[in-house]
Amino acid sequence: MESYFHWFDLLGIAVFAISGTLAAWRNQMDGFGVIVLASVTAIGGGTLRDLILNAPVIWINNNSYFYAIFIAAIGTILLVRNRLTIPHNTLQFFDALGLAFFVIMGTQKALDYGTSTMVAILLGTMSGVCGGMIRDVLCREVPMVFRGELYAVTCIFGGVVYTGLLALGVSQLPAMLAGMVALLLLRLAAIKWQLTIPVFSKHHNELNEP
Amino acid sequence: MESYFHWFDLLGIAVFAISGTLAAWRNQMDGFGVIVLASVTAIGGGTLRDLILNAPVIWINNNSYFYAIFIAAIGTILLVRNRLTIPHNTLQFFDALGLAFFVIMGTQKALDYGTSTMVAILLGTMSGVCGGMIRDVLCREVPMVFRGELYAVTCIFGGVVYTGLLALGVSQLPAMLAGMVALLLLRLAAIKWQLTIPVFSKHHNELNEP
Amino acid sequence: MESYFHWFDLLGIAVFAISGTLAAWRNQMDGFGVIVLASVTAIGGGTLRDLILNAPVIWINNNSYFYAIFIAAIGTILLVRNRLTIPHNTLQFFDALGLAFFVIMGTQKALDYGTSTMVAILLGTMSGVCGGMIRDVLCREVPMVFRGELYAVTCIFGGVVYTGLLALGVSQLPAMLAGMVALLLLRLAAIKWQLTIPVFSKHHNELNEP
Repeated sequence: MESYFHWFDLLGIAVFAISGTLAAWRNQMDGFGVIVLASVTAIGGGTLRDLILNAPVIWINNNSYFYAIFIAAIGTILLVRNRLTIPHNTLQFFDALGLAFFVIMGTQKALDYGTSTMVAILLGTMSGVCGGMIRDVLCREVPMVFRGELYAVTCIFGGVVYTGLLALGVSQLPAMLAGMVALLLLRLAAIKWQLTIPVFSKHHNELNEP
Repeated sequence: MESYFHWFDLLGIAVFAISGTLAAWRNQMDGFGVIVLASVTAIGGGTLRDLILNAPVIWINNNSYFYAIFIAAIGTILLVRNRLTIPHNTLQFFDALGLAFFVIMGTQKALDYGTSTMVAILLGTMSGVCGGMIRDVLCREVPMVFRGELYAVTCIFGGVVYTGLLALGVSQLPAMLAGMVALLLLRLAAIKWQLTIPVFSKHHNELNEP
Repeated sequence: MESYFHWFDLLGIAVFAISGTLAAWRNQMDGFGVIVLASVTAIGGGTLRDLILNAPVIWINNNSYFYAIFIAAIGTILLVRNRLTIPHNTLQFFDALGLAFFVIMGTQKALDYGTSTMVAILLGTMSGVCGGMIRDVLCREVPMVFRGELYAVTCIFGGVVYTGLLALGVSQLPAMLAGMVALLLLRLAAIKWQLTIPVFSKHHNELNEP
């Protein structure tokens, strides 16, 4: 049980570290700014979740998360330096993959600490979204979560699939995998077909005030 | 006792959620970016206060805060979609109202946890200010707290009125209401007459360095 | 023992408050925006460290930190108002000095709470770096930690010197002072000679995608 939790966590950490490193590269950062941005993206969301749950912060007694970040960041640097192009949507893909891992793992951790299903899905979403939000704020970009394409909705959807399957009596590992796959597919579909949920857009041109 | 605390909290949450939703509208955000911004504005400051007090985070065992956010956000969306204009200073008014609730409630909560009066007023100010700061940072605006008009000063003033009345033996509910009204009036006056406390401005034009 | 810890902490707080006040001045902020920015810079990093360690937040039962912030901020305001210029790199110098105090103090506090050396150095670096990051984000500047010049590297270097000397049996106070001086000298050298660790720069001009 515990072992695949830990591997999912490490995988999520690694892909978010890759996404942070790519963001550093796109913003022409040098030196260990890469390490800072990779770490913040990778552990920001999980740290916030653990603080709110009043749980020991995930990496406080476990160096393996940092090894995952270092390996992912250095691997990405070597890859970027040796290839001249990276497909345009690589950052988005790794972000989606990290999102899938973190949202489901975060939802489960919150349930383990006895929160309601609703709060658990919210904390799962925060685990997945907040590292990237800090990354984007530090890079002075509009956070990806606001750039449409169902970002927060996919997180909530994945959490609902996972907790719904649990409620139907499905055992934990298949329910987790189903939740992760559902989240990833919806997110990739939203990116590919640029799905959005318009809320205000209809009236925008007619409004007097921006 | 406890019951009006909870209602003040819900009211503060709701008006900050409205302020977050209006900020999302001004920044032409679509979909659930609205929900994210409404939630961050509404629970950001209180969450930070509770983490620092090492208290259970206010919403961790209570779904009613989320219902308040959802209702406030959806109500605001419907209102904005159906009216073509919103008075220019609506965002500022709701921000001031939420500020009044949160600063006094936050000051009281800190006192309950045994802090000094000074730290209690600071934590009350953080409760009121930090949600809006995160909102403004995510929208890439200069935080409202820095756009003059006595923003932080009004919070400290409200906290001083409240704790001063408590020290004079006034009972809790009237002291709270007096603190909230004092804070709200000073803030609205500061907005209306654009009151500021100039610190550096005199010399700015003469300085060689920006 | 405890007494010099407290004085180092107060000194670090004061120089970071000066750095925050100077940042407020450069951004033409008025009124108590100065106090907000001075406080955030001064206590942001240490607060985050204490939250992660699940330690009582450093200033929650101790008003002296706020007196240090007020005195430092008011002193800086008086100085800036009465002199027409401030040497261009003053902000960077005070930032480096605060960094030296906070990184070493933060590393020690983490060790006191039983973390591994690696996590202690990371938490020390966070103590030193995060207040300034929040300051820069609120001022909408690219965080100083990303503007090259070995910022994060100097923190890690100082932490390694300190924990290395401890491991070699050097007693605590001389090891701390050596770590602080080593950190400060490397940081000042990096600023003076604009040292960087290029990671991606070589290939940047040849890449198709920014």
